[in-house]
Amino acid sequence: MTERIHATYWLETPEDPLRAAQTIAGEQSSGTFLSLANETDELKERSGARIERLTVLETDTQPSLPGKYKEGATFTRCLLELSWSIDNMGVSLPNVMATVAGNLFELQCVSGLRILDLQLPPIFARTYPGPAFGIAGTRQLAGVPNGPLIGTIIKPSVGLSPEQTGLEARKLIQGGIDFIKDDELQAVGPHCPFEDRVRAVMREVHQASDRLGRKVMVAFNLTGELDDMKRRHDFVQSQGGTCIMVSLNAIGLVGLHELRRHTALPIHAHRNGWGYLSRHPALGWDYRAWHKIWRLAGADHLHVNGIGNKFSETDEQVAESVRAVIEPMWSDAPMHVMPVFSSGQTGLVAAATYASTSNSQDLIFAAGGGIFGHPAGVASGVAALRQAWDAAVAGVPLQQAASEKTELGQAMGFWS
Amino acid sequence: MTERIHATYWLETPEDPLRAAQTIAGEQSSGTFLSLANETDELKERSGARIERLTVLETDTQPSLPGKYKEGATFTRCLLELSWSIDNMGVSLPNVMATVAGNLFELQCVSGLRILDLQLPPIFARTYPGPAFGIAGTRQLAGVPNGPLIGTIIKPSVGLSPEQTGLEARKLIQGGIDFIKDDELQAVGPHCPFEDRVRAVMREVHQASDRLGRKVMVAFNLTGELDDMKRRHDFVQSQGGTCIMVSLNAIGLVGLHELRRHTALPIHAHRNGWGYLSRHPALGWDYRAWHKIWRLAGADHLHVNGIGNKFSETDEQVAESVRAVIEPMWSDAPMHVMPVFSSGQTGLVAAATYASTSNSQDLIFAAGGGIFGHPAGVASGVAALRQAWDAAVAGVPLQQAASEKTELGQAMGFWS
Repeated sequence: MTERIHATYWLETPEDPLRAAQTIAGEQSSGTFLSLANETDELKERSGARIERLTVLETDTQPSLPGKYKEGATFTRCLLELSWSIDNMGVSLPNVMATVAGNLFELQCVSGLRILDLQLPPIFARTYPGPAFGIAGTRQLAGVPNGPLIGTIIKPSVGLSPEQTGLEARKLIQGGIDFIKDDELQAVGPHCPFEDRVRAVMREVHQASDRLGRKVMVAFNLTGELDDMKRRHDFVQSQGGTCIMVSLNAIGLVGLHELRRHTALPIHAHRNGWGYLSRHPALGWDYRAWHKIWRLAGADHLHVNGIGNKFSETDEQVAESVRAVIEPMWSDAPMHVMPVFSSGQTGLVAAATYASTSNSQDLIFAAGGGIFGHPAGVASGVAALRQAWDAAVAGVPLQQAASEKTELGQAMGFWS
Repeated sequence: MTERIHATYWLETPEDPLRAAQTIAGEQSSGTFLSLANETDELKERSGARIERLTVLETDTQPSLPGKYKEGATFTRCLLELSWSIDNMGVSLPNVMATVAGNLFELQCVSGLRILDLQLPPIFARTYPGPAFGIAGTRQLAGVPNGPLIGTIIKPSVGLSPEQTGLEARKLIQGGIDFIKDDELQAVGPHCPFEDRVRAVMREVHQASDRLGRKVMVAFNLTGELDDMKRRHDFVQSQGGTCIMVSLNAIGLVGLHELRRHTALPIHAHRNGWGYLSRHPALGWDYRAWHKIWRLAGADHLHVNGIGNKFSETDEQVAESVRAVIEPMWSDAPMHVMPVFSSGQTGLVAAATYASTSNSQDLIFAAGGGIFGHPAGVASGVAALRQAWDAAVAGVPLQQAASEKTELGQAMGFWS
């Protein structure tokens, strides 16, 4: 029995759903729009995609996406599960991508298509490494055995000199932060050479480490071409750094795979560009399907947006992404990664965030304004976030905790 | 004077357009949603994104994309051009991606956003190689100095053994084809090991080459992880092959860049997945912007879909993609690539295709059913396509040519 990969789609079609499903299955395996003599039954049995499930949900008179439809067509929405033998594409994530998310979305029988989930057979866990550090490795390197890692992003996103960046890091480290990341726009320009920036920031990390008994984790954005990324990784490591960061959609799957092979540090994986992959509900990717590919390829920290975020996703969408990230990939190869919450985060959403992880604190909670806006300064901002999380974990209402804890009490005004 | 990159967007916003433009410019450069003391005027001047142009087009009461909008909001559509100093991100395509197409599409002030074009300063042409072969190199290797390269795709897409694939290639080569490509689903599985397939196909190419005076170009799909791609490339080269193929969205930008550094053969770049990047007109990428990144990174042949295609793009969209591909990147670094037409192509669209390229024949015209469906066989199918192209180039109406040329005459029935 050959192992199979499974993909689940939300499909909307102007045609009979079964016929549309057959077209999609055919297009993405052995078929073409002409029937061929050499597409034998034996070949189809071996190499054809199989329709595992087709559930009709509803019909509508309007299509979700523009296309070439017959006048008066009705549009049927359904759930479609397809499977393929892994013999079709081998144990290869790029070829899985081309199979489950290749030339499907533009088919004429598709007026809406979204990939919801992807199930890969366990042989993928023996071929792809998954995260090298994940939750346990990140906690160890950051010296934070329990609770959420309270993090932040260096701002302004871009434009600071290395020295200015170092000063920002100093403020944050003195303020008690666990985790600092570059903005994804902080790349490498003449005003802020990578090596100078890493040196300036790591000087602050080291200076505080004796007092703190830990090195604050800093995710240095090294997004770039492969040799640049490797060289920068080596430099971060040489300076005693403990984390690197990349923009997944910018480097692509081969980029992450090669970086994972090279790295001796956790990979903080930024999903910028996610909007163009997901913003229309009838097109593109659900996070559940998308994130599995990157997780398997080696991401250690994966961005999930945040509850109450300043972007367009609803809290329910965020919660669904979180559920996907904390689920094990396979029971015997869970490949646990750290979900990263960011975007307008404050202590007001600590309890809802804690609920979204099913009461796990294995996460990075990154706030910017939620820290810097504190009237008593950065240290009070960080303290207020910790107090909010403590309250959430203890099940104490935030207002009650705010009346007991000074920093939290001071924070409530500017958070709301 | 620092050089700047420019990106043009179609933007729809529930807010005042100028304010939305400022938010986007801020988010994608030095700003954040809180005003910061260290975001000085000098820093903003140096690192801020600049609004170069904002043209209001129209308003609507309905948003193109769902989001968190105020009740009764109106939605204004406009053209927005932003520019950034290259000092922000360096001469780095991955960082350009994260800047022009990062965390923008999900902003709350965005109810629709599509990147239309991207203008990079000439320093990119000195840093990135562009195509190694392009049009001239492809023509030379394929031994086709003039006219379109008539091509086809091995079908069934996946499932044939190496020997069966060799037999398909033999039929096509005997039929007079110029170019053969794998389907993007043809990866590497136990039923069709890469090396065996290349050997079987190249045997046919070599056997015919004396008679033809040229080696038919075969684009072998080697999509995979980097080491696999390099090893397969070397094998194709060792067997005398003249082309390799990859799925761009599956391997990503670092994958193509590394392959370009390694390759001694033209790279046939497949765009499968394009639908999820582009199918909704108010979201994602126009081909003009998207293709430039891959072209600069080293693609030699770039898919543009086809006139009269079986997918969802209109002929006007295809023609616009073609215009983008045939335009020079820079006047002194044109980086010309071969546009690849495919999807339901027949001789019926030869004239329209020729018009779409502004009467250039520097293209690959790939037909499947348009060749195999010919009642007199593959050779007649190929001949009919050439006759249709000859007629298009000579300005002879197709019906008239069909009455003069046997194969073309026979083809008209099954094409229509």
